[in-house]
Amino acid sequence: MSDAAYVAVDWGTSSFRLWLMDAEGRLLGERRSDEGMTVAAQRGFAAVLQSHLDALDVAADLPVVVCGMAGARQGWVEAGYVDTPARLSDILDGAVAVGGQARDIKILPGIAQRDAADPDVMRGEETQLLGALGGDARDDPIVCMPGTHSKWVHVRAGTVERFATFMTGELFSAIARDTILAHAVAGAAEAIDRDAFGSAVAAAFAAPARAANLLFRVRSRQLLLGGSAAAARETISGTLIGAELAAGLAGHVPGSAITLIASGRLQLLYQLALETLSIPLHCIDADDAVRRGLSRAAAAIWNH
Amino acid sequence: MSDAAYVAVDWGTSSFRLWLMDAEGRLLGERRSDEGMTVAAQRGFAAVLQSHLDALDVAADLPVVVCGMAGARQGWVEAGYVDTPARLSDILDGAVAVGGQARDIKILPGIAQRDAADPDVMRGEETQLLGALGGDARDDPIVCMPGTHSKWVHVRAGTVERFATFMTGELFSAIARDTILAHAVAGAAEAIDRDAFGSAVAAAFAAPARAANLLFRVRSRQLLLGGSAAAARETISGTLIGAELAAGLAGHVPGSAITLIASGRLQLLYQLALETLSIPLHCIDADDAVRRGLSRAAAAIWNH
Repeated sequence: MSDAAYVAVDWGTSSFRLWLMDAEGRLLGERRSDEGMTVAAQRGFAAVLQSHLDALDVAADLPVVVCGMAGARQGWVEAGYVDTPARLSDILDGAVAVGGQARDIKILPGIAQRDAADPDVMRGEETQLLGALGGDARDDPIVCMPGTHSKWVHVRAGTVERFATFMTGELFSAIARDTILAHAVAGAAEAIDRDAFGSAVAAAFAAPARAANLLFRVRSRQLLLGGSAAAARETISGTLIGAELAAGLAGHVPGSAITLIASGRLQLLYQLALETLSIPLHCIDADDAVRRGLSRAAAAIWNH
Repeated sequence: MSDAAYVAVDWGTSSFRLWLMDAEGRLLGERRSDEGMTVAAQRGFAAVLQSHLDALDVAADLPVVVCGMAGARQGWVEAGYVDTPARLSDILDGAVAVGGQARDIKILPGIAQRDAADPDVMRGEETQLLGALGGDARDDPIVCMPGTHSKWVHVRAGTVERFATFMTGELFSAIARDTILAHAVAGAAEAIDRDAFGSAVAAAFAAPARAANLLFRVRSRQLLLGGSAAAARETISGTLIGAELAAGLAGHVPGSAITLIASGRLQLLYQLALETLSIPLHCIDADDAVRRGLSRAAAAIWNH
């Protein structure tokens, strides 16, 4: 690994991803695990990181740049926030050093919306935005970043003006795992039931106040009319995403494209949801985006 | 207990309540436990019931009338449904006998809305409605029955025309127990934070699509601005109830009273929510209602 220049880490609540990069921002190696903040807080952040560095045989003096929940108060070292309106490039100035480590390890700050009527926070998504939109003074009036805690972000002239977090992904998990609907989704096949999903998105988008009713219908429908576990799962998912879209798309100019930063199954689902509502979009891969954002940070911090 | 005439049981998903009654419908004894359908399905319904009858020294030939989830497919004996439009008095004709028991045990049916576009089911609430509204041909355009699975029911001329179930109570439990918000509500004092609750009701009622965002704000607010665990709990509760009211009150004629059938803490919360929105209501105690409904059933079945 003689070309290795730095290590980039996206350390979320429940996931850990590490990339070994060369000076041109090319990928040399990758590690993924479920040792997110919650697990790492018990095992020790330094030990978890070192185990993945060892697995890739990373030199002892190679620097590491980290974004995400490792910088939270309950994380490794608190990295604070840049306040809205937040220039994305300002994130690069807020990196905090982890003390007592042999190598140079920096954690990037999050963004805080310190509005007493509408407080909000993000950690990790600011680095995705930096990578997806660049440091340019570009406008992205509506950026949708699906996830455990989905973010809807208004970016003007390279500055995050406002954002809102929806705990859609976490609600989905809790509902599918810990409520009466767990029976309805048990054993669902992998494949997405597109019809069930699209119908649920449309219904919840049209009447978001009924979300808790549309959710119970999953059970009523199976009791009275039958239906597959996958249809039940996609109805739960589509209901929550449809309601989120009804709020997130408020102020959307008809015909204008929104920016979707997502990957994997969530990308498929949100694309399908937006197509159901005839909303044009352009999609940026979330994994690429966070890696590019971390590379920009490495370049700014270490002149790589 | 020489005056005892029959036993009335409300057997829900997670709770069991039993009342020993005389022929005039007066209460002679009561038992409450958490041996709802879920627990009883493992321990045996007959054994659970008998243990409570023994505790009250009930004669071996006293009949028992049961409503609720004991009549579900996963319950003791399936008691089927009366379909909408459902005359409340028709419930009395649908009682199903539990076979193989020394005493006469009858389980009342639920109500089903077999509408492919809007299927729904209730079990137990139909007996509450019977007790609360009587068999009269009265109109109650909007009846709200809060609970684990809240019901909003349209009653005309003593007939349930339509209803909708909102899994508000179960969502509250899952969110407060199994999501990141569990930290925010941990250790909350018993007393209701009326200001936090009222604000949350008003915000969610005005913008129900934002419910998943208003929920995340509970965490953002604590992180950035602080706040008590009770305020966090009441904000979760008020958000879910406010969104439910936005749907349930659709079609409400301004100034007309809705009927609230509730008891305990839920009665306080829904009263407060309706007052926040300046909606007049008259309240009927849910415990009294189900007991009166079971008494009507006993009278019809055994001429008591």
